[in-house]
Amino acid sequence: MIEWKNFDKLNSFKKLQGLKNQVELKTAMAGANGAKRVAEYSVHMSNGMVYNFASKQVDDTVLDALAELAEETQLTEKFAALFNGEVINTGEKRLVLHQLTRGQLGSDVVADGVNKREFYVEQQNRIAEFAKKVHAGEIANEKGEKFTTVVQIGIGGSDLGPRAMYLALENWAKVTGTFKMEARFISNVDPDDAASVLAGVDVAHSIFILVSKSGTTLETLTNESFVKDALKNAGLDASKHMIAVTSDASPLAKSSDYLDAFFMDDYIGGRYSSTSSVGGAVLSLAFGPDVFARFLNGAAAEDALAKNTDIRKNPAMLDALIGVYERNILGYESTAVLPYSQALSRFPAHLQQLDMESNGKSVNRFGEAVDYVTGPVIFGEPGTNGQHSFYQLLHQGTNIIPLQFVGFKKSQMATDVVIEDSTSQQKLKANVAAQIMAFACGKDEDNRNKYFEGNRPSSIIVGEQLTPETLGALLAHFENKVMFQGFVWNLNSFDQEGVQLGKVLAKKVLSGDTSDALAAYAKLLDI
Amino acid sequence: MIEWKNFDKLNSFKKLQGLKNQVELKTAMAGANGAKRVAEYSVHMSNGMVYNFASKQVDDTVLDALAELAEETQLTEKFAALFNGEVINTGEKRLVLHQLTRGQLGSDVVADGVNKREFYVEQQNRIAEFAKKVHAGEIANEKGEKFTTVVQIGIGGSDLGPRAMYLALENWAKVTGTFKMEARFISNVDPDDAASVLAGVDVAHSIFILVSKSGTTLETLTNESFVKDALKNAGLDASKHMIAVTSDASPLAKSSDYLDAFFMDDYIGGRYSSTSSVGGAVLSLAFGPDVFARFLNGAAAEDALAKNTDIRKNPAMLDALIGVYERNILGYESTAVLPYSQALSRFPAHLQQLDMESNGKSVNRFGEAVDYVTGPVIFGEPGTNGQHSFYQLLHQGTNIIPLQFVGFKKSQMATDVVIEDSTSQQKLKANVAAQIMAFACGKDEDNRNKYFEGNRPSSIIVGEQLTPETLGALLAHFENKVMFQGFVWNLNSFDQEGVQLGKVLAKKVLSGDTSDALAAYAKLLDI
Repeated sequence: MIEWKNFDKLNSFKKLQGLKNQVELKTAMAGANGAKRVAEYSVHMSNGMVYNFASKQVDDTVLDALAELAEETQLTEKFAALFNGEVINTGEKRLVLHQLTRGQLGSDVVADGVNKREFYVEQQNRIAEFAKKVHAGEIANEKGEKFTTVVQIGIGGSDLGPRAMYLALENWAKVTGTFKMEARFISNVDPDDAASVLAGVDVAHSIFILVSKSGTTLETLTNESFVKDALKNAGLDASKHMIAVTSDASPLAKSSDYLDAFFMDDYIGGRYSSTSSVGGAVLSLAFGPDVFARFLNGAAAEDALAKNTDIRKNPAMLDALIGVYERNILGYESTAVLPYSQALSRFPAHLQQLDMESNGKSVNRFGEAVDYVTGPVIFGEPGTNGQHSFYQLLHQGTNIIPLQFVGFKKSQMATDVVIEDSTSQQKLKANVAAQIMAFACGKDEDNRNKYFEGNRPSSIIVGEQLTPETLGALLAHFENKVMFQGFVWNLNSFDQEGVQLGKVLAKKVLSGDTSDALAAYAKLLDI
Repeated sequence: MIEWKNFDKLNSFKKLQGLKNQVELKTAMAGANGAKRVAEYSVHMSNGMVYNFASKQVDDTVLDALAELAEETQLTEKFAALFNGEVINTGEKRLVLHQLTRGQLGSDVVADGVNKREFYVEQQNRIAEFAKKVHAGEIANEKGEKFTTVVQIGIGGSDLGPRAMYLALENWAKVTGTFKMEARFISNVDPDDAASVLAGVDVAHSIFILVSKSGTTLETLTNESFVKDALKNAGLDASKHMIAVTSDASPLAKSSDYLDAFFMDDYIGGRYSSTSSVGGAVLSLAFGPDVFARFLNGAAAEDALAKNTDIRKNPAMLDALIGVYERNILGYESTAVLPYSQALSRFPAHLQQLDMESNGKSVNRFGEAVDYVTGPVIFGEPGTNGQHSFYQLLHQGTNIIPLQFVGFKKSQMATDVVIEDSTSQQKLKANVAAQIMAFACGKDEDNRNKYFEGNRPSSIIVGEQLTPETLGALLAHFENKVMFQGFVWNLNSFDQEGVQLGKVLAKKVLSGDTSDALAAYAKLLDI
């Protein structure tokens, strides 16, 4: 029997409150004990990756209390309820099925009379067939010439995740020969976004993907119109250059305006949709369906680990619990995501949406105000770049920001140079190792300006190489982390009511239905 | 006589502490009073822009107290000391002269026997001559063909600022016909960064700018080697494809490895260097020296306003003071920068460095620990994209995040579509107006899930259009804001000792000089 309780009503919460100053990281990470922690505080992920939390402010006592929290808050049972098809998104009365796009973790899920795993696989297969035909030139432009570029039109979850995934694999695909088509993205309602992308592509050889679950997203429909104008101006038939990704109930689903339509449904939130048709269409076109399938397999393997009840065998759950400890017990307000991989340049922006839109809430799943803080601010940039930028504050600022590093043993492109007896990849890795220790242990120094307090916690995920599999695993790890944190905080992590009010007011402005300050702002902006 | 005092020792600080719950924004912005605030709480910037702070949690009482703070902390005098050439960067015993690259605000500044304004202008003129020759084909590749692409090799301040400025003006320049050359940027020591950029450019027609003040930045020299290899592999003479931007004392200054070298000096910090040769070379090559000159003029006009003692006539100072009130009195830890302009996509990343590296410090300018919080976490993405992402937390999360909006009346490219009776630019502007009001006033609703608490403060900077002038003014505004906040917090905003420890430890890893936890991390990463 699952019980949904507020975090501050739990016995384990009270226990954790007594463990606030349990670990002085600076001491814990010094000497032989530090090496022991690095060896022991490491959890296997899938695909040869590890989650290492040696430099977090935890010890066995805290970990035991977090395990109690996991048990008391029934994380395993709640995850099972989710993947077995219960209505976990209570606000919108919806199932939450994004894991089902990459594998089946429990019993068959039937909704609206359809086996949903079969539905998602069917869409993947349809996309795969379509992509193969495009790559073979069987689906081509009106002159019978192959499409060379794919342009995704979408915003929010239809943009950030797929874009981050594309960038993550673009160079890898070029080197491995799986690269098929360039991808571009149009998202912002700022007319300069669409105009700029369209000016930079060869529209006659471009295929456009319109992504909108409802088929009514204003930004996306506006940008579609931009694209149609560009195609028309080039003397082309827009309906021969566009496909749709939408729900099968949307007005776009059966429109003759598109070459074809691929489906998602209401059980996959935008920010969780990279492994659905939303990511599937663009990634299959860009890299081929086999690469997309490998990406899904990577995610599926990581999802399977999230079922483990032992937190030492469940990296997402452990990561989630440590995050809660940092947020609610240690009182940290932000978390920085710092991948040491240029290919992950937009991965932090995707996680920013994933996390902040899921858990940036003040009411529990019953719509009651909670008395504790919830989701943190998430930000980040790739290292080593960030080291020459905002790391100053991370090291010596007045607030402590927990850090989430990601690193890979091998680069993607295998082109490297040796300078001062080391390769760039070695330098990259040496920097992340050095940063972890600098943050944890700091440096004593009489000159306070050069003094580093230390005690700044971080974890690191290490993989062999950024590939479709490890990327899928990384994505699933963070999706599951956010889900577990939502369970602990007793939130509905799958709706987003906070985005509605702005939409309503924007419509008022556009229809001239304004007064007072809103009218004054409209005037200021010369709308 | 200037006195450098800690913030918490000031009378005005104590006064401000008594004004913590002075303004209920939700009430203040409702009805006619809200419209009045929008009209009155607006300060002229240069170049036709305004800084509007109607939706900040301030009123005339708070503003009076902030004016007292400005006076007590001698902001005007300290700025004058800075631009007149005093040693404001006390830690490194350096002058702080970035404003002097765009105009002279006070008396002649002579350092190292050189009139520094003349020195900066001389470099600008040398760059302008060089760029004109490149554009005219007088400086060309070995076959006498014109260079078409410029690639900046730099990291931190040599990357983020120039890159953000380039992206901000790229489309504008294309539309106005001032576009001269594509620009690309190599920054990360991750070998995939250089390999990817080099794979995407035509090296035979590329000119590379090596940017390193000291001439010793490891990432940058490593990436230079990457570039030299690529040029060599293409059968080209690297010295005919590279220029250097460095200090005149650096080993690069007179090297025959470069076509030419342009100079900056120790009085311009990396994060303040976009208006120096660091931004000057790449922006003059990309857009022509006239555009760069206009950018400098925009900044100069904004700098001039920063001299005003009246905070109602000094937008940077007012913005700074309100930020301090939010940080130290209201207790907010982060600030989001939200430009409603896709062209400003990397402007938040630049401000993140500018602000967090300048004021993310725990010691005052005398090296004594301070007892108050200093620089906030800065993050942001362009709107409307962010609305479909992390705005959920901004609206309904458990912490309040002050917001800094930027908007323009006109788009850059003047290509637009009308959908539902409005252009995209109108929709873009309607959204930012709507968001400000949604954040300020919220929405009452019995269903707590759809309830918006409001009372979430924001300001907006509005300009006619994003042009070289307004971009320069925006940049100067934020540079000066950060400077004034540093003065209030009694920090040295111009050094960055917090980046040193990581460098030292990374060298140890690379030389194998590790033990204990650092050795264990090196092993984990297979270095």
